Amino acid sequence: MENFHLRPLGVLRTPFRNAAEAPIQGALDPSALGQVEVFEEYAAGLRDVEGFSHLLLLYVFHRAGEEQLVVTPFLDDHARGVFATRHPRRPNHLGLTVVELVARRGNVLEVRGVDMLDGTPVVDIKPYVPAFDAGPADARVGWLTDRMEGKRRKAK
Amino acid sequence: MENFHLRPLGVLRTPFRNAAEAPIQGALDPSALGQVEVFEEYAAGLRDVEGFSHLLLLYVFHRAGEEQLVVTPFLDDHARGVFATRHPRRPNHLGLTVVELVARRGNVLEVRGVDMLDGTPVVDIKPYVPAFDAGPADARVGWLTDRMEGKRRKAK
Repeated sequence: MENFHLRPLGVLRTPFRNAAEAPIQGALDPSALGQVEVFEEYAAGLRDVEGFSHLLLLYVFHRAGEEQLVVTPFLDDHARGVFATRHPRRPNHLGLTVVELVARRGNVLEVRGVDMLDGTPVVDIKPYVPAFDAGPADARVGWLTDRMEGKRRKAK
Repeated sequence: MENFHLRPLGVLRTPFRNAAEAPIQGALDPSALGQVEVFEEYAAGLRDVEGFSHLLLLYVFHRAGEEQLVVTPFLDDHARGVFATRHPRRPNHLGLTVVELVARRGNVLEVRGVDMLDGTPVVDIKPYVPAFDAGPADARVGWLTDRMEGKRRKAK
């Protein structure tokens, strides 16, 4: 199959300069504020986005290093297939985080719940729609089961 | 910023040969069965995936046509910024669907809730984890508000 090109549409500004500073998942500590700076040439695509309280950000783990098919996740001490994890060293290095949209100022989105490194390239912005995107609350989470105890998205 | 390359990691087999046959969102009609055929060179990354009941599939709308920043969504008759929609003619043509993992047979994942065209290239597979991925059930959905009445993920 052919390969595809991925163009950054904007860049994330976050408080995290390296992996040691970033939370493991934004949803587990949704207090961190950041900005999505959408490049001017894509700003017209933001019309109507302020009607949505939450967004799905797709981005590239641009500093993750070499791809690996088997990884040891941050929340685990066993090796796991990378597609059973959210580890950044995955093929294509794509990341996904649900954030709260706090405000829009022109081509800048103020968002809460970031877990990405400062400077992360954003490759898509989608509205979060519960009817499309919320799986069942009791979805089975495999090796993460024990590690999720007491770790829930905090009320906002 | 530099561009990135996106390599297909597998291909989706679905009942839908064209857009007229496909449901607007898999979650609204989650009965459709499909298969993710992960290419052999990435199959090692699937270890442990069977512990998860739901997966996030990231894929390319490979037949969507030219990118547009303003689109008229399938569920609407007004023009909207593409980032306030799930329209396929978005920059980078990335798609995202939550599916139920029914079974794994080697490098083939049997999944329920597909809405993609047959032959769609898959570029990432992530475990769906409610604590990471479920936004609030009452997330505001902007222009979709009226159109979502009576449209909820069916119980499974």
